[in-house]
Amino acid sequence: MEIEIATIGGYEEVGRQMTAVRAGNDIVIFDMGLNLSQVLIHDNVETERMHSLDLIDMGAIPDDRIMSDLEGDVKAIVPTHGHLDHIGAISKLAHRYDAPVVATPFTIELVKQQIEGEQKFGVENDLVKMSGGESMTIGDHGVELEFVHVTHSIIDAINPVLHTPEGAIVYGLDKRMDHSPVIQDPIDMKRFREIGREDNGVLCYIEDCTNANKKGRTPSENVAREHLRDVLYSMEDYDGGIVATTFSSHISRVTSLVEFAKDIGRQPVLLGRSMEKYSGTAERLDFVDFPSDLGMFGHRKSVDRTFKRIMNEGKENFLPVVTGHQGEPRAMLTRMARGETPYELDDGDKVVFSARVIPEPTNEGQRYQAERLLGMQGARVYDEIHVSGHLCQEGHYEMLDALQPRHIIPAHQDLKGFSGYVDLASNQGYQMGRDIHVTRNGNLISIVD
Amino acid sequence: MEIEIATIGGYEEVGRQMTAVRAGNDIVIFDMGLNLSQVLIHDNVETERMHSLDLIDMGAIPDDRIMSDLEGDVKAIVPTHGHLDHIGAISKLAHRYDAPVVATPFTIELVKQQIEGEQKFGVENDLVKMSGGESMTIGDHGVELEFVHVTHSIIDAINPVLHTPEGAIVYGLDKRMDHSPVIQDPIDMKRFREIGREDNGVLCYIEDCTNANKKGRTPSENVAREHLRDVLYSMEDYDGGIVATTFSSHISRVTSLVEFAKDIGRQPVLLGRSMEKYSGTAERLDFVDFPSDLGMFGHRKSVDRTFKRIMNEGKENFLPVVTGHQGEPRAMLTRMARGETPYELDDGDKVVFSARVIPEPTNEGQRYQAERLLGMQGARVYDEIHVSGHLCQEGHYEMLDALQPRHIIPAHQDLKGFSGYVDLASNQGYQMGRDIHVTRNGNLISIVD
Amino acid sequence: MEIEIATIGGYEEVGRQMTAVRAGNDIVIFDMGLNLSQVLIHDNVETERMHSLDLIDMGAIPDDRIMSDLEGDVKAIVPTHGHLDHIGAISKLAHRYDAPVVATPFTIELVKQQIEGEQKFGVENDLVKMSGGESMTIGDHGVELEFVHVTHSIIDAINPVLHTPEGAIVYGLDKRMDHSPVIQDPIDMKRFREIGREDNGVLCYIEDCTNANKKGRTPSENVAREHLRDVLYSMEDYDGGIVATTFSSHISRVTSLVEFAKDIGRQPVLLGRSMEKYSGTAERLDFVDFPSDLGMFGHRKSVDRTFKRIMNEGKENFLPVVTGHQGEPRAMLTRMARGETPYELDDGDKVVFSARVIPEPTNEGQRYQAERLLGMQGARVYDEIHVSGHLCQEGHYEMLDALQPRHIIPAHQDLKGFSGYVDLASNQGYQMGRDIHVTRNGNLISIVD
Amino acid sequence: MEIEIATIGGYEEVGRQMTAVRAGNDIVIFDMGLNLSQVLIHDNVETERMHSLDLIDMGAIPDDRIMSDLEGDVKAIVPTHGHLDHIGAISKLAHRYDAPVVATPFTIELVKQQIEGEQKFGVENDLVKMSGGESMTIGDHGVELEFVHVTHSIIDAINPVLHTPEGAIVYGLDKRMDHSPVIQDPIDMKRFREIGREDNGVLCYIEDCTNANKKGRTPSENVAREHLRDVLYSMEDYDGGIVATTFSSHISRVTSLVEFAKDIGRQPVLLGRSMEKYSGTAERLDFVDFPSDLGMFGHRKSVDRTFKRIMNEGKENFLPVVTGHQGEPRAMLTRMARGETPYELDDGDKVVFSARVIPEPTNEGQRYQAERLLGMQGARVYDEIHVSGHLCQEGHYEMLDALQPRHIIPAHQDLKGFSGYVDLASNQGYQMGRDIHVTRNGNLISIVD
Repeated sequence: MEIEIATIGGYEEVGRQMTAVRAGNDIVIFDMGLNLSQVLIHDNVETERMHSLDLIDMGAIPDDRIMSDLEGDVKAIVPTHGHLDHIGAISKLAHRYDAPVVATPFTIELVKQQIEGEQKFGVENDLVKMSGGESMTIGDHGVELEFVHVTHSIIDAINPVLHTPEGAIVYGLDKRMDHSPVIQDPIDMKRFREIGREDNGVLCYIEDCTNANKKGRTPSENVAREHLRDVLYSMEDYDGGIVATTFSSHISRVTSLVEFAKDIGRQPVLLGRSMEKYSGTAERLDFVDFPSDLGMFGHRKSVDRTFKRIMNEGKENFLPVVTGHQGEPRAMLTRMARGETPYELDDGDKVVFSARVIPEPTNEGQRYQAERLLGMQGARVYDEIHVSGHLCQEGHYEMLDALQPRHIIPAHQDLKGFSGYVDLASNQGYQMGRDIHVTRNGNLISIVD
Repeated sequence: MEIEIATIGGYEEVGRQMTAVRAGNDIVIFDMGLNLSQVLIHDNVETERMHSLDLIDMGAIPDDRIMSDLEGDVKAIVPTHGHLDHIGAISKLAHRYDAPVVATPFTIELVKQQIEGEQKFGVENDLVKMSGGESMTIGDHGVELEFVHVTHSIIDAINPVLHTPEGAIVYGLDKRMDHSPVIQDPIDMKRFREIGREDNGVLCYIEDCTNANKKGRTPSENVAREHLRDVLYSMEDYDGGIVATTFSSHISRVTSLVEFAKDIGRQPVLLGRSMEKYSGTAERLDFVDFPSDLGMFGHRKSVDRTFKRIMNEGKENFLPVVTGHQGEPRAMLTRMARGETPYELDDGDKVVFSARVIPEPTNEGQRYQAERLLGMQGARVYDEIHVSGHLCQEGHYEMLDALQPRHIIPAHQDLKGFSGYVDLASNQGYQMGRDIHVTRNGNLISIVD
Repeated sequence: MEIEIATIGGYEEVGRQMTAVRAGNDIVIFDMGLNLSQVLIHDNVETERMHSLDLIDMGAIPDDRIMSDLEGDVKAIVPTHGHLDHIGAISKLAHRYDAPVVATPFTIELVKQQIEGEQKFGVENDLVKMSGGESMTIGDHGVELEFVHVTHSIIDAINPVLHTPEGAIVYGLDKRMDHSPVIQDPIDMKRFREIGREDNGVLCYIEDCTNANKKGRTPSENVAREHLRDVLYSMEDYDGGIVATTFSSHISRVTSLVEFAKDIGRQPVLLGRSMEKYSGTAERLDFVDFPSDLGMFGHRKSVDRTFKRIMNEGKENFLPVVTGHQGEPRAMLTRMARGETPYELDDGDKVVFSARVIPEPTNEGQRYQAERLLGMQGARVYDEIHVSGHLCQEGHYEMLDALQPRHIIPAHQDLKGFSGYVDLASNQGYQMGRDIHVTRNGNLISIVD
Repeated sequence: MEIEIATIGGYEEVGRQMTAVRAGNDIVIFDMGLNLSQVLIHDNVETERMHSLDLIDMGAIPDDRIMSDLEGDVKAIVPTHGHLDHIGAISKLAHRYDAPVVATPFTIELVKQQIEGEQKFGVENDLVKMSGGESMTIGDHGVELEFVHVTHSIIDAINPVLHTPEGAIVYGLDKRMDHSPVIQDPIDMKRFREIGREDNGVLCYIEDCTNANKKGRTPSENVAREHLRDVLYSMEDYDGGIVATTFSSHISRVTSLVEFAKDIGRQPVLLGRSMEKYSGTAERLDFVDFPSDLGMFGHRKSVDRTFKRIMNEGKENFLPVVTGHQGEPRAMLTRMARGETPYELDDGDKVVFSARVIPEPTNEGQRYQAERLLGMQGARVYDEIHVSGHLCQEGHYEMLDALQPRHIIPAHQDLKGFSGYVDLASNQGYQMGRDIHVTRNGNLISIVD
């Protein structure tokens, strides 16, 4: 059976991931993501109303025109998890394919919301839920799609595995190797090791190289949790305002914030459009069991009403968890820093960034401005209380050891980002040009002729 | 009562700490430390045989000649904890003063060992033990010396407080604000707050500015412990060699390593002269309760014999904890990396650095070399599993809030290092030249005329 | 005669410089500057219409309320050169003092323009021109004000020296030690050495510490010129667009750009409001002799008309020199990068940044965005063709050697920035608290009681 | 005609360069270099006595065993210039090939000296001189070898071009695009452009990617020269010691140092084994015309005798140019810093580093130590007076434009180092896997089957 892999997007950047695997006549697409930074660099762009081709030209969504070179039928579109760089182009591209979107329940829900927000295209693909540990048949030639449960900075993440007669194709984006996550099960390394030892073994492994130039092991979410606990507990005696911010989609982290807020005698409240969206969704789908009195508010009016209530009832009784961890100009925390909300910061009030600045000068500049504005109001800043959601080098080492793939394709970075992974794999006996396929967007790699 | 403070050493560097406080006619000396880097930059220097004046000229020990300008009698020499930069000059300088060395039991034991190693001077000062929470009278004019228990990267650390009729002098070197240390009690913030509210309050606070340019809060040792647990547990299934290194004097960290080694089914063993020294001392004094079968070996012969035994019985059964976390050329780990010990590293063996590289080009070069040599042997490196022992900015903020001192003196850094502290204190209403005393080595500051 | 120095602004930052020196009853004010970054962090602030007190509260202009503690009469306001951080608050503060503004001709002209732009206050101080090398009498007690010619990144810069019966006060902001500047004479080191050897010598030296943490010697403008020549000559054969940007006030650099443009067969043209302002002023005052056909256009309409002409006549015949070297969002180059001007960038077009990014995250973010946008249009970027206008450590060393001042006051930085200078001076025998006066904004230093 | 390229060494590192090109049955080898850092990391290694295989195992010299996979006869060994990473393995590997070494006169002389120093192997290959601009025939099938003159940080550098019936193979290591070098002609860009436009054009270009991640254009040697002039002229009035250090093989730089020493009234003198070697060779071969009284001393005895003479006759009359610009522990400058030579450094003496620290932690550590030791003796340090010898991105852009090669192979870096070049080439329409051949050591690339 011919096996071919199209590296459509996310092979020159972190963002707009999209990969297609053809096994005989059956094609499965993994991820359809958005590169938000390519949108934001332009003033006043509203993606909801834009045409795909314009977004492709901007480098914002994958250039899927190469799909016409792949002979076969798309049988499924499989986003691995609910981050925008993996699902953000579904509303712009999925309608071109006569295939269902297959994903875990939480991811499907986020895809559904995204499609509902789309204003240019009518996207009517079926949305099919499949959980980690489950499988489905693809086409009629013995190809099977399996979801292996993994751990990432969003819940309900999986690595899809396409079992073919030639061996398994493991699509390894995005994960860290977490044996003590705060929510859901640890990563299913047992299953990966089994797949590595099965009859045909692993034909090809496509790997998340986000942190491939970083040494060591990405810590468990539990380490971030203990760090966060240490920070919040240290504020137990403070009788003024405490505000926290983190990635809205990071449900485990939000859960820890909510829990520790309670522990130190404060009422947590989630504020900001995407805070409400992700946490609300997680709660509705029963992934978390938030306290019944936990408020979540997204619309500006209800947020401001909540801030007023907090000011009336006493800041010392609340812990608002807000958007704005990167200093985004229009996010909640930046508005607070500019004094544009009813919440007043006083000397000594604490602001907890449970996030790391994404290391890119634009973010660094915005975050710096936000911190300066917070500082002008007397706020005290606690930052970098975070662990990454992506494997570092020792995780890559362990994955190669578990899967023993015959071919590997580095993804989710540019060439500089791949370099640490290629070095590592070369030391393990792989060879660039032979079984390490270093590539860029828009290539077809023939694995089995 | 006149109060004068002599900033003898450690006000232009991290190292060779020494401060004298005169209250009326009674003088107490805090710390007498060594700046090891000033020794190591020269080839073939053996401090044990050197004269004080030569070491002073080298910038290795404090220049205590300024003590002759202080009118009064030295009543006590008070090292705050057992690190070399606080006790390392006692063997060279203490004999000049007719006063006992007063310190906590663990510190006293380390001072005793140091004096025994001295070959140039006979040091015969009394060694007096006093624990955190205890006090003693100094002289006849109502001056009292109290030890407040603090948390640092070595056990049995205290902050000495000299209670005078004019208010308390708090000598704040070195500490972090740890509410969940692994060994001993949390920092005694309750007592600091009491001292801040007492009748005369705090006249002067001398502060450890090591990390004064770093934002946020120094995490608890518990955070490093959970990080270390995550790393070691992730290696549970590995059936080859695992080696760890950390600061020998960091008894909490060594304890965690020993405990997690057991958890993953390996026999821990401590190797290297200073590993044996510090852990042996801690065990003898009952600060830790190591497993009865824990081996500690310092002499090269017994270390090599142990390595041979490990190789014979199977590396997969052991976890050697060795010296060499900074890549020091003659330390155990560097010798292992060079293949100079019987322990053979194989492809995939793990080396855990539970330490951060001290950010200075010499260390960075040596550590880089050590890691390159380890890598040539196939070892996998896990580094930076560590938290600092020194307050960051939010700790400083809390200490000022607790103590409300009338004067502050930044210490344990150079001017660039002080700058973050001065900024912080200025924002709190202090003013340089009025109540912030930014100084250098060798000055006398008159606090009360 | 009592000598007192008020450190009003620019002792905690680079920006809003202001220092007053009282000699007996006569007071001279050096500089009245603006800290632009304190303005820009707020949205939509128009300083022209703002009241002084609001600008003081924002940290944008010096807080001169301390002047009421100085007993005496202000006899002169002396800006050292025409940069905004030295003259930018004159329109907001000068009218409070019954004293003339005394400065070099180029500086006076820039002050005049600034006053004309002011919309809140009527500033009617006399504007008095005095050139480098000249002197004037201040008051009736033997105090003399001398201007020593120095070299900086703007022309007609001086260091004012106040000769008093107690010795000279040398106000050393801002300069580098340039022996081969492109315009005007080299720095007058001979005069500094004379002043250092005169009867009363130098009582106090206030020093520009901008680069005090940088090793070595700031290169001459001639080095930047040869670098720039190398870059532009290398483009001689290119037949598309070349655009350059630099500091508008940097007349020497603009002159070199103009000259090299001609050398490679292109018509230079200066575009952008401040380009026109500074170069036009320099030409009117005969500081430069630009080619008679050199166009300078400031208003958007005439700029756009020029761009259209360039596109019509062929980009390959022109070299526009534009504003926007820091990626400022509204500057000309950023507009070009966004495609908002008639000038179209093509693949391979060259953009020359004869400037260094000011190392602050906001600038770095904006500049990064500008370069990304330029790159999207195919432009090739040549950056960092620049030398600083401020002394590095060896310049400071030489100044101390020349002046042999009895007191020194570091300025034009914050404490971290001062640290390199204090280290250097301490090595030369000065001592903090005795003759090195490290201070912050708003202090009075009594030099002679 | 089949064309095949073997990437033997220098494709994973900067060092041990070696590439073989097979055109039909004729093979030409370009470079045979040494990676010195792989030697120095081990203690006490003497390469002169070592066997090739051991040096290959250490990663110190190229692993040329892949040559047996190339069917054909080696016709020439062509080192491009005299740096060790290009000629340093000739004494270990050349004797295996029955072929002459063909190089420019200066390079041949350095090869000869290296072979004379070899103690393990007898190397008897013919040494054939050919200058830039000349050609020779290779084999009997219309293959021609041409040397195009280029500019680098050593004189007499060329880029060899192998003209084949299929087009030219341009071996582009190492160069910068210098239009105003201090010695010899500018780079022969005219010839490169001709080759790019010839009938068959350029089949393949192998490029020096050392600086491929650096923006802009590498400045001309003339820029470094003017920088150096500025520094040394600024010391004209200093009446104590001035010492300079630079790369010994950098004859242009040494020439500038010698000239400027004279200009400021000092007698230059070259000290250190490699200073004598390179400058002596350049003078004997008439590449430079040093002043007749210029002393060059290599042996320690004569160096120390010279230092004694300098001390006797007055340091203020001399400018020693010595080895040790990277702080190498045994180099002359480090010995001076440790006080191990008769030359005594006094307070205020100047040390000029006309070199940049090679950015690797080992060098950075050693250089830091050297500067600290110099500082302890009162020396003032002027560093980074240098420009690189390698193309930055805009040079790469221009070379692609000139040559228009059909295939490109990035070399002289590792994958991370290649990334900037691949990005640039991709923007120019090349595609990885199609005509950009990103590779590692030990691969065969078939360009024409």
